[in-house]
Amino acid sequence: MIYTSEAIESAIESLSSLPTIGRKTAQRLTLHLLRQPKEDVEKLAHALLNMKEKVRYCSHCCNLTESDPCNICTSTKRNRATICVIEDPSDLFAIERTNEYFGLYHVLHGALNPLEGIGPNELKIKELLARLSDEAVQEIILAMNPNVEGEVTTQYLVKLLKPLGIKVSRLARGIPMGSDLEFADEATVSRALQGRVEA
Amino acid sequence: MIYTSEAIESAIESLSSLPTIGRKTAQRLTLHLLRQPKEDVEKLAHALLNMKEKVRYCSHCCNLTESDPCNICTSTKRNRATICVIEDPSDLFAIERTNEYFGLYHVLHGALNPLEGIGPNELKIKELLARLSDEAVQEIILAMNPNVEGEVTTQYLVKLLKPLGIKVSRLARGIPMGSDLEFADEATVSRALQGRVEA
Repeated sequence: MIYTSEAIESAIESLSSLPTIGRKTAQRLTLHLLRQPKEDVEKLAHALLNMKEKVRYCSHCCNLTESDPCNICTSTKRNRATICVIEDPSDLFAIERTNEYFGLYHVLHGALNPLEGIGPNELKIKELLARLSDEAVQEIILAMNPNVEGEVTTQYLVKLLKPLGIKVSRLARGIPMGSDLEFADEATVSRALQGRVEA
Repeated sequence: MIYTSEAIESAIESLSSLPTIGRKTAQRLTLHLLRQPKEDVEKLAHALLNMKEKVRYCSHCCNLTESDPCNICTSTKRNRATICVIEDPSDLFAIERTNEYFGLYHVLHGALNPLEGIGPNELKIKELLARLSDEAVQEIILAMNPNVEGEVTTQYLVKLLKPLGIKVSRLARGIPMGSDLEFADEATVSRALQGRVEA
């Protein structure tokens, strides 16, 4: 294009390759960065490079970390007999925010999805089994996402783990807090009924 | 936070300082970048640094450019007697896409907005006036955005430019192509009526 510079074009292209960022947003972000002081752009670029340089997987729980093993795996305050299995590092944030879980984690980095070619070998399931033979684990909490892939992964792990004689539990399904019963979908209400507890 | 790394945290913080990117999106982008090959992240970071390094304002038209004067100002194919005044570099893309304008541009880098402290001195108006004394300009097309700030800027420039004996025009306001008359707002229909042309 005659009316723009190659440097701008390649910045727009790089930004629009990110998820949820289309060409229009990339263009707006680029023009915004051009208006910012040079230090701000350098800070952003270096933060990304530094993160990519330093962050790797924890060799125990496969979570993202700068120090291996990670802070949670080495913490003396955590209960080492419980492992919560999650799909993604972002799920860990969600559980930590509750301040009610003090065990360890194991991050699978995805869920089973045969249609997209994601089988057990693509997930960190081998690593989970290795931990079970080493560590004195008493309970595994499966905290997969409530969708088809999450359900399939849960079923697969239940079949794999039950024979090992370890207690396997999963997150309760039911009406979310702060919502209205009348607006809950049938599947959620049905699960809430099935999972009813004594009052 | 104990459960995340400082490098990730600072990447999330840098990304969420960008417009339209909140903390959740920044978190998702960061986790996405951690999954990408190192080269991709380096490419993005270097594209941003390179752009900030090379791109500056054209000393003629104040558009963003790598070479000063910019490609449009130096082009022998453009009509040097017409200047289209726009608010932002992105507006230039919109006009170039029509393939119907072959004059020069002048980028104001904003619109008058007294409430936010943006007066004539904050815009590239001095630079526009300097061009008029140097160059043999016959027509100035004001292509401000159709909002209050754009209207104020247009009125201000009309008052400034008319006494110089140069033809000053502005973009037509009316029903946009491809839309329905019944869904157009009153202000648009009213402008379309006022600006009616012989059929």
